[in-house]
Amino acid sequence: MTTTRTQVAIVGAGPAGLLLSVLLQREGIDSVVIETRTRDEIEATVRAGVLEQNTVDLLKEAGLGDRLVREGAVHHGIHLRFDRRTRRIDLSALTGGRSITLYAQHEVIKDLVAARVRSGQPIAFGVRDVHLRDLETEAPTVRYRAAEGNEATIACDFVAGCDGYHGVSRTSIPARSRVEHSRAYPFGWFGILVEAPLASEELIYARHDRGFALVSTRSPSLQRLYFQCEPGDSVEAWPDARVWDELHTRLETDDGWTFREGRITQKNIVAMRSFVCETMRHGRLFLAGDAAHIVPPTGAKGLNLAVADVRLLSAAIAAHYATGDDAGLDRYAAEALARVWRCEHFSWWMTSMLHRFPGEDSFHRHLQLSQLDYLTRSKAAATALAENYVGLPWDWTNDNSRGGLQ
Amino acid sequence: MTTTRTQVAIVGAGPAGLLLSVLLQREGIDSVVIETRTRDEIEATVRAGVLEQNTVDLLKEAGLGDRLVREGAVHHGIHLRFDRRTRRIDLSALTGGRSITLYAQHEVIKDLVAARVRSGQPIAFGVRDVHLRDLETEAPTVRYRAAEGNEATIACDFVAGCDGYHGVSRTSIPARSRVEHSRAYPFGWFGILVEAPLASEELIYARHDRGFALVSTRSPSLQRLYFQCEPGDSVEAWPDARVWDELHTRLETDDGWTFREGRITQKNIVAMRSFVCETMRHGRLFLAGDAAHIVPPTGAKGLNLAVADVRLLSAAIAAHYATGDDAGLDRYAAEALARVWRCEHFSWWMTSMLHRFPGEDSFHRHLQLSQLDYLTRSKAAATALAENYVGLPWDWTNDNSRGGLQ
Repeated sequence: MTTTRTQVAIVGAGPAGLLLSVLLQREGIDSVVIETRTRDEIEATVRAGVLEQNTVDLLKEAGLGDRLVREGAVHHGIHLRFDRRTRRIDLSALTGGRSITLYAQHEVIKDLVAARVRSGQPIAFGVRDVHLRDLETEAPTVRYRAAEGNEATIACDFVAGCDGYHGVSRTSIPARSRVEHSRAYPFGWFGILVEAPLASEELIYARHDRGFALVSTRSPSLQRLYFQCEPGDSVEAWPDARVWDELHTRLETDDGWTFREGRITQKNIVAMRSFVCETMRHGRLFLAGDAAHIVPPTGAKGLNLAVADVRLLSAAIAAHYATGDDAGLDRYAAEALARVWRCEHFSWWMTSMLHRFPGEDSFHRHLQLSQLDYLTRSKAAATALAENYVGLPWDWTNDNSRGGLQ
Repeated sequence: MTTTRTQVAIVGAGPAGLLLSVLLQREGIDSVVIETRTRDEIEATVRAGVLEQNTVDLLKEAGLGDRLVREGAVHHGIHLRFDRRTRRIDLSALTGGRSITLYAQHEVIKDLVAARVRSGQPIAFGVRDVHLRDLETEAPTVRYRAAEGNEATIACDFVAGCDGYHGVSRTSIPARSRVEHSRAYPFGWFGILVEAPLASEELIYARHDRGFALVSTRSPSLQRLYFQCEPGDSVEAWPDARVWDELHTRLETDDGWTFREGRITQKNIVAMRSFVCETMRHGRLFLAGDAAHIVPPTGAKGLNLAVADVRLLSAAIAAHYATGDDAGLDRYAAEALARVWRCEHFSWWMTSMLHRFPGEDSFHRHLQLSQLDYLTRSKAAATALAENYVGLPWDWTNDNSRGGLQ
């Protein structure tokens, strides 16, 4: 049994854990990162791809902006497609110049892992049997079995639980001390990666009577398309021809918009659910990212919420060490959850507006269409969408500044 | 059998029918109005009380503004109450100076009946057995039995179906030619009229874990309070003491807001539902107001939608007689329905945000609270509420002008 002493034990090397390690290091705070998956696995998993303005700004400030700026694509608008027509939401014009950047989550992960490795601070992949201990004391520990097979212990001041929904961190909070809120949606997203030129310069969110579809991109030659499918659907049920038929049907417009098909290199089905754990803190354990909350992908908020969490958490931990002021740590759960619920609501709202629901009546259909039409006519309504989509300012809950909202 | 010849037969002397008769008369177009209820009945039924800016402007233009301006109360804001705190939505600041006027629907009715009677044109109360005939021809007729017992026929060019949800007009459209969309809500509104001073200068829309409550007013000495109740609730189940307990519980705030009780002069239960009939036109029959659509009262849109309908319809009929141009008549159903669906959506949205739903989970509760909190922090979101509440401009669907929306 080896014991390592550090200030912050970070459980999980996803975006939350890795970014936290980088932000803490910049404040001179030591950490140890452990991750059950291998480095290859975390660097290869294709997931989200939309970075809020906030996220981009923070990554740049943290010295992680080089490749992001070079390879990411800045988007100033998105398109809503319904009733066989397309209306653009001008994100930048509506939010005082803010924008989103398309840069895949696994590329962010690569940049973060590289920065962590460069720092020389420890990061252990492929660990097993992680246990969090003594969280209610000032000397918590994290025990695990290393990839090499030996048992190891991290003795630390704080544990950051960044190990996702299925990790051990959240369930290390006693059941009596947490409340879990969740919602399952009666559909999934069928996603494909396609070798083809850009189908659209900007993302297209489409509502069709057959269900939702989304045109996104990963690079100028690799496109990401999704369409709403049954929750229990299987990849095998969708040969390429059926996929293309469905996408053409849902995305066609009266003015003849179409897209080039290509070689499909990946098919997968994404489950759709919402989840929030209250609280996000237990003693010296602080949850961040998917360990505490899941959003359906419609609002593109998952990665961005993880970044918002660790921004708050790193600042609170830095204040603890710098001045002994624990007010930030004490406020962490409430502050993080205010943004979490905002993004949960926004993600639910986008999902509700754009998807077909089993058993929905014609009244529901007309409500969706009226809302979409209104969104594209009212500057106020479009601005509400835009300011959420590009990311509300960090201080939006500050009553004095009114959060800089439009 | 007496036969009266006129240009427009108006079935129903509610706000839609009466206002239509006044607007047509100003264009020199003759009409006959028939109504199954007595004049006393229609002038005594206490219903809605919030007039949009649009409605006020139109009533003034139609020469119906004298008493409205003298006795109506102009409100520049409303209050949202949740989590035991209150936030004001500044309707006027958010909409370029637009406002609402509190002036009871039965007062509008009295003004309209007086104007109709003054005009000398016929209006028959207490009629029975109304039948619409030959609607698909250019010479439709309306048959009925007059209050005096004699059978009568109106021969006309157009029939305006303004006789509400239970009237004969809508069901005179063959079932194959109309589609009905509806939704019932799993709750009602328990309303009381109270002899008491104003509880609040402006309306208060309250969300409480026990359900919705609304503080409104009819005059400085007569207040109108509502609270969400069970759909099958009965007035007998709510003795005064229970009513006051419930209202105090739902309306209390942390800063000590309270209200004066008084003598309750009326208790009633309002059903909550949404309904839209498509189409609103069949041959020479044109539906307006509740005959074609019902909204839950949360958005205060019922009376205002009726006014919007007859504004369009009177202009279309006037164009027919003035120039022979029937484009307005041909566009009527589609144009009216665009506003109807907007108001249906707004009313559904306000209802969803503020009411307790049976079986709702904690996730739903948090979505409501996050949305309310956001509405009171984001100028864009508050503006979207405000511009709908004061009434979208008449031309809001005009793509060229962008409808003057914020």
